[in-house]
Formats: sequence, structure tokens, C-alpha cells
Amino acid sequence: MRLATLENETPDGRLVLVAPDGAYCASAPAPNLQAALEDWDAFAAAACSITTFPDSLDLARVRAPLPRAWQWLDGSVYPSHGALMDKVLGVDKPPVDHPLMYQGVSDTFYGPLQDVPMASEELGIDFEGEFGIIIDRVPMGTSAVDATRHIRLLVQINDWSLRALAGPEMKTGFGWLQAKPPCSMAPFAITPDELGDAWQDSRPHLHLRVSWNGKQFGDAFGGPMAYGFNEIMAHAARTRHLVAGTVIGSGTVSNENFRDVGSSCIAERRGIEIVDEGKPRTEFMRFGDSVRMEARLANGRTPFGNIEQKVVKA
Amino acid sequence: MRLATLENETPDGRLVLVAPDGAYCASAPAPNLQAALEDWDAFAAAACSITTFPDSLDLARVRAPLPRAWQWLDGSVYPSHGALMDKVLGVDKPPVDHPLMYQGVSDTFYGPLQDVPMASEELGIDFEGEFGIIIDRVPMGTSAVDATRHIRLLVQINDWSLRALAGPEMKTGFGWLQAKPPCSMAPFAITPDELGDAWQDSRPHLHLRVSWNGKQFGDAFGGPMAYGFNEIMAHAARTRHLVAGTVIGSGTVSNENFRDVGSSCIAERRGIEIVDEGKPRTEFMRFGDSVRMEARLANGRTPFGNIEQKVVKA
Repeated sequence: MRLATLENETPDGRLVLVAPDGAYCASAPAPNLQAALEDWDAFAAAACSITTFPDSLDLARVRAPLPRAWQWLDGSVYPSHGALMDKVLGVDKPPVDHPLMYQGVSDTFYGPLQDVPMASEELGIDFEGEFGIIIDRVPMGTSAVDATRHIRLLVQINDWSLRALAGPEMKTGFGWLQAKPPCSMAPFAITPDELGDAWQDSRPHLHLRVSWNGKQFGDAFGGPMAYGFNEIMAHAARTRHLVAGTVIGSGTVSNENFRDVGSSCIAERRGIEIVDEGKPRTEFMRFGDSVRMEARLANGRTPFGNIEQKVVKA
Repeated sequence: MRLATLENETPDGRLVLVAPDGAYCASAPAPNLQAALEDWDAFAAAACSITTFPDSLDLARVRAPLPRAWQWLDGSVYPSHGALMDKVLGVDKPPVDHPLMYQGVSDTFYGPLQDVPMASEELGIDFEGEFGIIIDRVPMGTSAVDATRHIRLLVQINDWSLRALAGPEMKTGFGWLQAKPPCSMAPFAITPDELGDAWQDSRPHLHLRVSWNGKQFGDAFGGPMAYGFNEIMAHAARTRHLVAGTVIGSGTVSNENFRDVGSSCIAERRGIEIVDEGKPRTEFMRFGDSVRMEARLANGRTPFGNIEQKVVKA
């Protein structure tokens, strides 16, 4: 099942089921995605019986599948990215035996084609290509094994970041706040079965092709997460319930051979330049710059659709 | 104006206006507080015309004034608390010229009398008495001066903390996640004018009396915030819009003479013991323990009502 949310002048938008070809849609049996997630089994049963898609899907009206959520928790579970960033930021972290994670702003997720307002070019504007999940309610203390069945939807996310603020905020111990403005989501939220064999051990086995101003920047593989999404969920749920509609991210998709496949964020490329050449060469984004992100299966299909958006002055 | 939210089997509860005596209430001209905040001027105008309070207020049915919010940002702006905690946690932070702040879980705020479920006694269960504000929409880039008029309501908060997790999470640079389960709120959200002269420079000039298992633990004064709430808001809004209903906290209320007035959290008392005696003597909370928090004006009035709740096993 593929779901999208259309603009309808309400904060949560209108939910539609998307046809396999991505060009047509049908009204979903819930007013919006948050409502669907709050009673997922009933929603899924009703949605399964819908097999005709009478309306053409206007991508210009597509918002984030979940335009706002009660909670957004972002992990950082690609070891090649974490190790490089610690090195170049001079962060001296003790080793931990759990996923690293922070809570970010969840009241706004930008749509896939929406311009993204930023306060200033001086803040080090960067994209971060990620995978994410949307869950139904997870009680406090749920194990990683039990968490798996609460993964209802997969999404593709651009976790916008302001790098001039990120390092200093880490050093306070309070984590990121100003460094993390709202994220964007690709058009379609999909049930895990849509990925077939490319969904393994709660990990998305797709390539994430990232282009910046029309030029390919990275094509990293989503598989090598140090922790599966079910383990990330169990970590988050240790001391709190997770409400239906909580969104959880993987952190920047990254591979050990990033020099070959490229990166999913500018900071990682700059990190490589610092290690290889002594200083960064690649600048951060400017107003008017665009980024495109598409996650591709081995057969070339792009199950989430594409993010393609421009940074503008707030 | 004093507002409370009553249980009505919906996630957001039912909003009421509370009489000056705190014993009676009237239906508010908005279904819930979130709705009121989204059109505050219209709400406030309609609410002003309500002068009779026909219903008795059943405190047992009172929830948090805002039982869930799109965003909860907690500062740490009492210098005496921050300096002591850094010292005893061994956190070596560079000095910063802005309020320290993290984003916490906002989908749940416990009511003032509700039992609070915690995962384990081994996690160092602690209370944190704080003041907070609830705002209407603040655009990105709003200055501290302009932020002031967006402070719509004041609240009193217990920011539950798990100290065994807090120090290690700070050292990762990602900040607190497991260390911060949902907070609680005192019964009444009040407009700033309810405090009269005790609301100065966006700071609450009240004493916060905290009792643990019936024994007074602290009575710190709210005035000496290093940053007013308007400055905290401007910091948060530098790179993001703040949606209506965003809740912002002061961090643990603390005074330089904490050896005389006591503390608003156990961690601070333990910190004093470490400094004075070489090691902490006071243990953290156990299941079945209770905490009471009341903010008092100089005339003895308690404008927010009282938090009085018990910790239980989740």
C-alpha cells in the first residue's frame, strides 16, 4: 500500500491511496494519516478493499505523508558517517552500546516539492538523506522483537541541518535545537511489503540517489544500519510510550566506501576532504540551490517518489 | 484568566475557565486549549465576557492544562543549578552566550494528581520543579522584544528526569532522550496579568515550594533566571517557526543560596552533598514516593494550584 497526503487547507491534509503506477489515487478510508495510524488495523482492512484509483494524482498538491507528527526521533546508525563526523568535529564521545538519537521538531514536515525557508546562508545549510518509519502506538518497555510489528509505514526523509550550529550545540551536552529546522518527506509512505526482499531485518535495502543542483552527489546503500529500526524503537521506548504517528529516522545514509559511492549530506563530503586534503573544499548550500533525493530498488523503481526542493530565504 | 482542562475521554480534554476562588468553573469558548491558542485574540475576547462560574470544579477530573502539545522545549537558565550540575557531572562545557535548551517529549503531559509510571527505580527517578509558558504562533526570526507579546499563558511544570541516564546521554552530544520521560503540569494555566507585579521582565517572581513524601525539600525563588522567557523564545525561534501551543520551560528553579532555601530537584541536593561532604547522601525516588509542588505569591496565593503525585511502576 502506498499513501500520500493532499493539500486541503487543513493542518493534516487529506489522505489518499496511490495506484501502483503512482499516477492515480483514491480517497483513503481515514481523513488523514494520523487518524489512520490511531486505528491502523481497521484502516488497513478497509484500505485493502480499494482496488480502483479514479483520480489523477497531482504531485504539485502532494504534501508530506504526515505533515505534522507528535514526535520525531532521529537516530544516527550508519557507523561510517558517525565515525567520520566525530573525527572532523573533534567530538570525543565515549563508546555506547545503543543507537544515538535526538528529538527534533515534529510539528512541521515539508512536502517533497516545497521550498524550504532558512534563516541565513551563514549557518551552513545542508541536506541529509535518510530513511524513516512511522509507527502505531508502542508501549513503554517494548522489546526490539515486539517493536517490529508496530512499523506500519516507511518514508524517505531529508533532515535539513545547519552545520555552523551543530558542532557547538553538541558540545553543550544539550544536543541539537537550532541546528535542526523541520525536515522534508518524499511523496509516498509505503507499507514494508512494498519493498519485498529489500526490507530485511528492519532495514531498507535501497540505494538513495542524491543530486545537488542537478549533479549527482551520492548513491549510498541503505542496508548497513548498525541497528535495525526495531532496535531504534526499543531504545526510544525504554522510558516512554511512543504515540501512534511517531516518526523515527535512520540518520544520514552512509557507506564505508563513501569515497566511491558519494555521500547523503555535504558535511560528510567535507569530512572526507578534511581527512584527505587537510581542509574542506565543498561549500554548503546557497539560497536558490536545489536538492533531489530518490530511493531506488534494484529494478529501478522509486517506491517513495522523489524529493526535489529549493532552499529560500525565510 | 485561569484555565483548566477536564477529562472528557478525548486526547485534548475539555477547556474551562476557573473562578478566582479556584472552586468553580465555566465552559470556555473553545473546545480545548490547543484550539484556543490557535486563535488566541478571538478566544480571549470571548472569554472576558464570561463572569459567572456555574459548575463546581472537580480537581480529580483535572488534567494538564495542555494534555499534549506539538512542541516542548526546556531551557536551563538558573545559573546556580547549571554550574553545580556541570561540576558534579564532570561536564566540561564551553561557555555560551545563549540559553541552553533541548526538545523533549510533548505528546503527553501528565495531570497534577496523576500517578506517574516509571520503568525502573534503578534509573535515578527525580523531579524538577519549573515554571513554563505556553505561546501562540511565533514566526522564525522573532526578536526577544517581539516575542514577549506571544507569551499567552504561564504554567508550573514537573520535568521528570532519570538521572542514571542523564549524564551518559549528555556525553554523547545528542542530548537527553531516555533521561526525559513526559512531564506533569499543575492544574491551572494563567494569563501573565494574574501574577501582577510578580511577573517582571518575562520572569515569574514566585517561590516554588517542593515537598517529597510530605517533607519540605525546597522553596526556591523563580526570579533569578539568567534569560527571560522572551529571550528563551527568541533563541528557539532563530531557525524555526514555533507553532501555537508550544510549551517552553525554565529548567529547575534554583537560587545561589540553595543551602538555605533548598532545591527543586534531588540531583541538585546530591550535588551540594558531593561538594560539601565528598559524596551524595540523599537517594533518588522509589516507587510509591510522592512529590508536591506549589508556587506561592508573597500574599500566600497559589495561582497554578498544586502538583501532588506519586511515582509507580510502569
